[in-house]
Amino acid sequence: MKIAVLGTGGGARCHIAKLLELGHEVVVGTRDPRATLSRTEPDMMGTPPFGRFLAEHPAADLRTFGDAAAASDGLVISGIDGHSAVNALSAIADRLAGKTLIDYAVPFIYQHEPEHPWPTPWGIMPKLEPVDTDSLGEQIQRALPRTKVVKSFVTQEQSTVVNPASVGDGEHTMFVAGDHMDAKQQAIDLLKSYGWTDILDLGQLVCARGMEMYAHMHSAIGFGLGQQFGGHFGIKVVR
Amino acid sequence: MKIAVLGTGGGARCHIAKLLELGHEVVVGTRDPRATLSRTEPDMMGTPPFGRFLAEHPAADLRTFGDAAAASDGLVISGIDGHSAVNALSAIADRLAGKTLIDYAVPFIYQHEPEHPWPTPWGIMPKLEPVDTDSLGEQIQRALPRTKVVKSFVTQEQSTVVNPASVGDGEHTMFVAGDHMDAKQQAIDLLKSYGWTDILDLGQLVCARGMEMYAHMHSAIGFGLGQQFGGHFGIKVVR
Repeated sequence: MKIAVLGTGGGARCHIAKLLELGHEVVVGTRDPRATLSRTEPDMMGTPPFGRFLAEHPAADLRTFGDAAAASDGLVISGIDGHSAVNALSAIADRLAGKTLIDYAVPFIYQHEPEHPWPTPWGIMPKLEPVDTDSLGEQIQRALPRTKVVKSFVTQEQSTVVNPASVGDGEHTMFVAGDHMDAKQQAIDLLKSYGWTDILDLGQLVCARGMEMYAHMHSAIGFGLGQQFGGHFGIKVVR
Repeated sequence: MKIAVLGTGGGARCHIAKLLELGHEVVVGTRDPRATLSRTEPDMMGTPPFGRFLAEHPAADLRTFGDAAAASDGLVISGIDGHSAVNALSAIADRLAGKTLIDYAVPFIYQHEPEHPWPTPWGIMPKLEPVDTDSLGEQIQRALPRTKVVKSFVTQEQSTVVNPASVGDGEHTMFVAGDHMDAKQQAIDLLKSYGWTDILDLGQLVCARGMEMYAHMHSAIGFGLGQQFGGHFGIKVVR
């Protein structure tokens, strides 16, 4: 299959590498391919420049967001950060029409709010926007009515999403939500190819609210485990 | 030990019954004991009148919120609903001074918001207030600076909190958060006496945000499992 991954950050790279390993063709989307390739320093998250990653994964095909989306057979994984996702995806709505889009972003706003200065153990708590009565997943679906949006992958680090067996022998649970059954099935099939055996369909895309808001609990659990900087754990739904 | 349980709803009753079973003296607090005892119809959640429960648990000692709190040896469990908790507890701040208060409420607001009418699979999504940049647990701690507040129990139904072995042989995780180590230890000791073996200390009370916001995910998981009306499951943190 030819799958598009939008984004070149650490999470997107996990999917790009895994999809190549599984024998897929991978088209990678970025805002400005030339600018992405010209960077020589690590980004603010400490991720090495994408050019170095590309040198190790030469089969990945770097294009603009729109060209990558259009080139995919039908499945697009969005690794665009939550703050930029609606705008970036709306700008290529025509290229995403008819495709399945898996969104795994948390709509964090990394700005210090003077009226809410309480520090968390992991620094100032990034605020979520939207939260509670809406979700990024639903916002993307409303902005892209011709695209089938699935929310998934968002409840843990992408490094463990693409390698579930690295945590507790894979005995943890992955969640999907969306308003289109066929698109959810594509996400579930992909997850099974990643090695997931416990995949719970939460139902409609409104459940993206709970998945995104779980970000605070995920951070707190990571702190409780002493894993502040990129957690290596999952949660299992125990019946 | 003489433990106070504030509230007479379904969740509070789980703790009252379990604490009596474990041999504790239990003082139950309610706003107006006479009014509580005069009710003969189930409440809006379908819970039978408290008088019937009391007839089956005659050792439980029903008093006002303040008298119950003052009578406890030092441990108070608040089963007051999230919308009322800050006001009800502030009104008895003197009686709670020096005690440990375990709060397990979710600050749901059960009001329909015309601007956010999206229905969820489980009905209209109750809104959380506070959310994201504050939590009910922190609000209670600020309102009661002489009381040691612990947030716990909130991530699942109280029927499974007091009987962890009823879910997956007890192989799931309970969380605690709070700013006072000795108070957290009291909560942990209580949880161990309930049968919990996997108790994760998330850290400071700020982590109550994640625990309360997990309510949406909990509802969504319940829906995914086909358990809309009172879930019978837990989550296990898998390392």
